Amino acid sequence: MSRWFALALAPLMIAACSQAQPSSPAKPTPTPSASDILAGSPASDWRPIDPENTVYLDLPKGRVIIELAPAFAPNHVANIKALARAHYFDHAFVVRVQDNYVVQWSQPDSKTPLGAGKATLPAEFDRPAAGAPFDPLPDPDTYAPQVGFSDGFPAARDPGAGRAWLTHCYGMVGAGRDNDADSGGGAELYAVIGNAPRPLDRNVTLVGRVVQGIELMSAMPRGTGDLGFYEHPEQRIPIAAITVAADLPPAQRVALESLRTDSATFARLVDARRNRHDAWYKYASGHVDVCNVKVPVRAHAAR
Amino acid sequence: MSRWFALALAPLMIAACSQAQPSSPAKPTPTPSASDILAGSPASDWRPIDPENTVYLDLPKGRVIIELAPAFAPNHVANIKALARAHYFDHAFVVRVQDNYVVQWSQPDSKTPLGAGKATLPAEFDRPAAGAPFDPLPDPDTYAPQVGFSDGFPAARDPGAGRAWLTHCYGMVGAGRDNDADSGGGAELYAVIGNAPRPLDRNVTLVGRVVQGIELMSAMPRGTGDLGFYEHPEQRIPIAAITVAADLPPAQRVALESLRTDSATFARLVDARRNRHDAWYKYASGHVDVCNVKVPVRAHAAR
Repeated sequence: MSRWFALALAPLMIAACSQAQPSSPAKPTPTPSASDILAGSPASDWRPIDPENTVYLDLPKGRVIIELAPAFAPNHVANIKALARAHYFDHAFVVRVQDNYVVQWSQPDSKTPLGAGKATLPAEFDRPAAGAPFDPLPDPDTYAPQVGFSDGFPAARDPGAGRAWLTHCYGMVGAGRDNDADSGGGAELYAVIGNAPRPLDRNVTLVGRVVQGIELMSAMPRGTGDLGFYEHPEQRIPIAAITVAADLPPAQRVALESLRTDSATFARLVDARRNRHDAWYKYASGHVDVCNVKVPVRAHAAR
Repeated sequence: MSRWFALALAPLMIAACSQAQPSSPAKPTPTPSASDILAGSPASDWRPIDPENTVYLDLPKGRVIIELAPAFAPNHVANIKALARAHYFDHAFVVRVQDNYVVQWSQPDSKTPLGAGKATLPAEFDRPAAGAPFDPLPDPDTYAPQVGFSDGFPAARDPGAGRAWLTHCYGMVGAGRDNDADSGGGAELYAVIGNAPRPLDRNVTLVGRVVQGIELMSAMPRGTGDLGFYEHPEQRIPIAAITVAADLPPAQRVALESLRTDSATFARLVDARRNRHDAWYKYASGHVDVCNVKVPVRAHAAR
């Protein structure tokens, strides 16, 4: 049994501050674990997740909670909320589960009208970098000139072009579209369940991130049709509803808070991901990929 | 229904050769799809996967096929085959499924002895770069000075240090270990089912890659214990056996071939991943991550 232990340790964000220089080259000082770093964080390093920008997607096996990103996709976010409020998604289904790629949902039978929502919207693939918070990583990235975090969301920037966009990391949610860039809108959505499909960056409007329950989607049976679509309607997984959290009484909401990505605590966590020195890790690359940093989200006790 | 189509197209390795200059800037020439590129490939661009380096892992829902990597982990590969031939894995179970990370299997009850196999082996985290085939990608990588492919396996190199190693991409298989670097050996193995956990590179001995059936693992129910371990023995998923393909009569083997990563066909595929210009893609980064290139494997009809 003991041999399990070590690999088991690996996924923890075991911390080792690069600032903490080893007193002896042979024995670097192991530094606090991620949970220790978080335990010592001041309340001001966390921000409540706004119920007005939160939707609950209810599946037979549980609830997926998505934080929407109005700073990057204001029109799509408004439209998704309008569609949710029109009960458009009450007849939605997961229609596609493609391994190492996406889970996708839509209303295949068009039973419910769009209400105040729109079928399509102009693309929101990127935005001006100016005005968007950005906490950069110093690490090289394969796809973008610069990567980092924008108020909790993984993001990238092109300083030369003055543009910023969200990146397709695990759990990110986007709006499916047809060939026309402006053919999406949010009536059909997907969540990333595989290795970050970064070639989709700037090709799809990303609208948010799953902050709880992604494992309910990632463990769904894979579709056996082309591109992971379910071949038979009875294989589709029903969505009971998508609900805007703010529309529920406070007592029925799931109060969450997200670690501020401009906080000292987050900087310590990222540094620990980059430079792990502990009993298990023998080698640290000194780098971390934007999609290998999970921004901590936890219950917000104060609400 | 039509709106499905476009996002559905996205995961295809839609091809657009960068060599094919657009005749007009407004209309880049869409170039052949991945399947078109592969359809035109000469037989010599493929190599049969050696049955002596192939193991079948049989699960209740089907077979996972793993190609072993003796060029990088000769001792671990020999040991895994010795353990398989001693029927060590006939009482193995999937004991851990951690979301966005790994599926892990072992023989938790130690019913079957090791036979000619060993419980532990010295680590094979990396090897001399000299003598290992390496087809480099020109793209920047977050974790390694250079990335590419070594005879079909995703790999990295440090030219300065003269070392090469396999990289933790989706579907890669490694040997779990305890804190001691030399405490692995192959009696306990895992497969990557999430975003590439590249911080594990050079910290674990990677022994192979799943070439068929990874979706049987990635869709398994997530463990609810710490780090995704199943909390109750009855949740474990039994492995009927791990069998070396060469030990079966040829008619009972699954004959596969892998696209040679030093071939012109593979170079075209990679270039298409890097520079997509087609009806759906509006933006191409001009880059590709080593873990976003799936090396094609197909049935080898000639055998």
